[in-house]
Amino acid sequence: MLDRRRFIGAATIGTGAAIAGLAGSGPAFGQGAQALASPQVDFPENPRDFGGGGSAAGAVNRAEIDLFDCEVEGNWPQDLDGVFYRVGPDPQYPKDPKWAGDIPFDGEGHVSMFRIKDGHVDYKTRYVRNQRWKAQHEARRSLFGMYRNPLTDDPSVEGLSRGTANTQLFLHHGKLLVYKEDSPPVHLDPLTLETIDDYYTFGGKLNSQTHTAHPKIDPLTGEYIGFGYEASGLLSKDIFVFSADRAGQVNWSTTVQAPYAGMMHDFAVTQSHIVLYLTNMVADAERIRAGGVHFTYDPGKPCYMGVMRRGGDGKDLKWFTGANLFCTHVMGGWSDGDKIVTDWDGGEGNQFPFFPSKAPFEPAKATGLIRRFTIDLSSRTNDRYQTETLFPEVNGVLSRQDDRFHTLPYRYGYLNSGAGWAIIDHADSSVQQVTVPDYRLSEMTFVPRKADAPEGDGYLIGIGSSIKENGRSDLILVDTKDPAAGPVARVKMPFQVVGQVHGFWADASQIPGASAA
Amino acid sequence: MLDRRRFIGAATIGTGAAIAGLAGSGPAFGQGAQALASPQVDFPENPRDFGGGGSAAGAVNRAEIDLFDCEVEGNWPQDLDGVFYRVGPDPQYPKDPKWAGDIPFDGEGHVSMFRIKDGHVDYKTRYVRNQRWKAQHEARRSLFGMYRNPLTDDPSVEGLSRGTANTQLFLHHGKLLVYKEDSPPVHLDPLTLETIDDYYTFGGKLNSQTHTAHPKIDPLTGEYIGFGYEASGLLSKDIFVFSADRAGQVNWSTTVQAPYAGMMHDFAVTQSHIVLYLTNMVADAERIRAGGVHFTYDPGKPCYMGVMRRGGDGKDLKWFTGANLFCTHVMGGWSDGDKIVTDWDGGEGNQFPFFPSKAPFEPAKATGLIRRFTIDLSSRTNDRYQTETLFPEVNGVLSRQDDRFHTLPYRYGYLNSGAGWAIIDHADSSVQQVTVPDYRLSEMTFVPRKADAPEGDGYLIGIGSSIKENGRSDLILVDTKDPAAGPVARVKMPFQVVGQVHGFWADASQIPGASAA
Repeated sequence: MLDRRRFIGAATIGTGAAIAGLAGSGPAFGQGAQALASPQVDFPENPRDFGGGGSAAGAVNRAEIDLFDCEVEGNWPQDLDGVFYRVGPDPQYPKDPKWAGDIPFDGEGHVSMFRIKDGHVDYKTRYVRNQRWKAQHEARRSLFGMYRNPLTDDPSVEGLSRGTANTQLFLHHGKLLVYKEDSPPVHLDPLTLETIDDYYTFGGKLNSQTHTAHPKIDPLTGEYIGFGYEASGLLSKDIFVFSADRAGQVNWSTTVQAPYAGMMHDFAVTQSHIVLYLTNMVADAERIRAGGVHFTYDPGKPCYMGVMRRGGDGKDLKWFTGANLFCTHVMGGWSDGDKIVTDWDGGEGNQFPFFPSKAPFEPAKATGLIRRFTIDLSSRTNDRYQTETLFPEVNGVLSRQDDRFHTLPYRYGYLNSGAGWAIIDHADSSVQQVTVPDYRLSEMTFVPRKADAPEGDGYLIGIGSSIKENGRSDLILVDTKDPAAGPVARVKMPFQVVGQVHGFWADASQIPGASAA
Repeated sequence: MLDRRRFIGAATIGTGAAIAGLAGSGPAFGQGAQALASPQVDFPENPRDFGGGGSAAGAVNRAEIDLFDCEVEGNWPQDLDGVFYRVGPDPQYPKDPKWAGDIPFDGEGHVSMFRIKDGHVDYKTRYVRNQRWKAQHEARRSLFGMYRNPLTDDPSVEGLSRGTANTQLFLHHGKLLVYKEDSPPVHLDPLTLETIDDYYTFGGKLNSQTHTAHPKIDPLTGEYIGFGYEASGLLSKDIFVFSADRAGQVNWSTTVQAPYAGMMHDFAVTQSHIVLYLTNMVADAERIRAGGVHFTYDPGKPCYMGVMRRGGDGKDLKWFTGANLFCTHVMGGWSDGDKIVTDWDGGEGNQFPFFPSKAPFEPAKATGLIRRFTIDLSSRTNDRYQTETLFPEVNGVLSRQDDRFHTLPYRYGYLNSGAGWAIIDHADSSVQQVTVPDYRLSEMTFVPRKADAPEGDGYLIGIGSSIKENGRSDLILVDTKDPAAGPVARVKMPFQVVGQVHGFWADASQIPGASAA
């Protein structure tokens, strides 16, 4: 049986009090006796296990790379000057076999960057040196158990942040911030990728144990808007919402309550409001106690959208419900008087089959379509959001927009179907498809042609994997004014680059020291 | 036409006076007007061109990598504590198209290391930051033209060392030295691979513009024995021969003369003598003047072995000739009274088809067999070496031995046939073959089981390329006591590692700071 004192310790340090009540009833996960052991590094063969496949092509990567002056093909725009950043999970170590069923999203964050200038491209990757990475590096073994379940950790890491920093990154007030939604950002140097702060709290003002992977920018004020759910600790319903000015100084924050503790992966911000979104991927105390992952998909639970004024005290927060869609990423959103419109990609059911579910996984219901949610604040009694499906002929996930139009009415959105990228034009209801023969495409990111280019005028950038060349990667650049022409330029990598969840474009003018470097 | 002043400058600075007489008669290679240009980095598609294939699998690599705690399979010996180093050419930049016919051996040196300790293995690679690499890095383009032909260089690099440091490395007096035979060693930190001295001259005592890639160690005294040919500059017949003590202090040196200027890739050292070896890969002034590579294979020229006493003034040097074999690497050698025996791998004709030749390339004549050269010093009139072919059923190249038996009578030699490794036992005239199904094997290096293990008792280590996995690499360890069992352990790399010419094993006890690191 698990030692009660240690169990309580693991449950409370850094995770809040909410799970303390679970103490004493779970199986014995302790690994104290082996805490100093450093087993042979051998990943499981089963590709469904955590890190499965190991060194086989396309499985774990783990190589930190500098490739100066990559090979380039086509006509790389000579005036493009910035960095394309990417991040994704890349298992640092194989797990103890009893945690082999952990999900891929629990891999440690590996950041990559393409520094683009004068038609030359330098590539660099580094693991994020967060608290988790450093402890495991020192021990030469995995010390953290299941996805967002601190009860499965090695006792030696009590009190350390469990964050993997593996989901998305953002450049604001000169800092490259890397996110995992269960923990505060990690601050990296945007040119060297060195970790500067393994637990970045906006000068102590992030009054939350968590921070979303999808903050937004207000292009009119330059403000950064973020939130954290399960903010007060594991299973807590607290949501911390805040904004910071151009210099990163927190200028507004409040804490509100969710209907229940569940996944709140993305959110929308308009000029006047915050739109929180709670999916029915429910934080599951029973499963955590049993040594499982954090969530269970429960189609019987309603999804909610919570709307509150920006800059207020949060007491105006109102939760709306409606069609039980499962959405993951925001394309865009805005306020029009009392009407709030937000567009998301989403399915009718669970899109994450690797999470446990109370219903069988249905691939057809996982299909992502563009879902428009409209909320009318004019009626006090209305607590329903309205939904419609836009462009039903287009499916995909990982929706994005021209980030300069966060919070504002927008025209262009982008969607990734894996086979290609779709350019959505809401103004004329047209869709243009970008495909690259014999390549699979990762998420696209929009790059403005110039700082003051009109909305959507520029490029889509992202990684393509060559099917015919064993997954070898190209960085692909497509001109949004002529997507049918295919890539205008490519960076030809000599290998398959590290995997990603999301990417981010930063213009050199945003990056301190970039012009000199 | 080429500017005469600059031509003379390029020809004399760093290359000696021998080529100055060529001035004024060659074509105009100058690229002065474009010296500052930084063209798009795009390697040629033709795999026969320099850097041909570019980012295609198995072509150029160029990625500097840190992979901490590689995946390991099998039973890695827990007490093995050291580093397996490798180096090979890896084109830093595509050449100006007029030098696209340059040979692969002109690629810039890329060093890799596997740090092995406690059954864990850390991988690291770095380009050597020599003068050539730094100039090209700064300019973001190739600045050096054809293989060992300074007349083809961009004028901006006049006076810089042309050395690529791409052939072999050696650890002595705590320094990792990396070699190209046209230039002095480059000194790297043996743990970080940082370049410490881009032109290492043994404290100014290397009285030569060149240094072999294959120095030897005297295991009885710990002395390092090296030489440089074309020592006084391009096309010079001077050969500088020297030794240094355990602390790297040069304790003997002399300069002698070759019959003609030609390739002297390896040499043999016995307890009493130095055996220089001149092949009929002739330094070719006409070709250099015409903008070609340094050598022409001329089967009409005799090969020579030059024998001189260690520690003498070099006046006793005597050149022997005999069967016109083309040998590249020494397996072992020793003195027995007046008789000197050296074993090499070699063919009856040119083994380097990428060099120009006065006779058509004949693959059958390139086949490497173990050639034993015997020289009898007892007769003043004898100027012939005797040759015999050992183990005619075994062919291969890149012969090695247990390096602790340099200069001494030896029993075990190793040969690489590409398909596998051969373990030669001269005592019982047996051969054992090491093959790994579905893998091609690079050069093997012997690793003693323990510091005081008997000769040949230990492991062969080297890189295997998986044919079925698109060239993905394993580092393979074979027990010399049971080679038929196949690899006892492997490091499974997630990609094809950078190519190599040679590898070198250093025990941790030889590497300053290795135990603490």
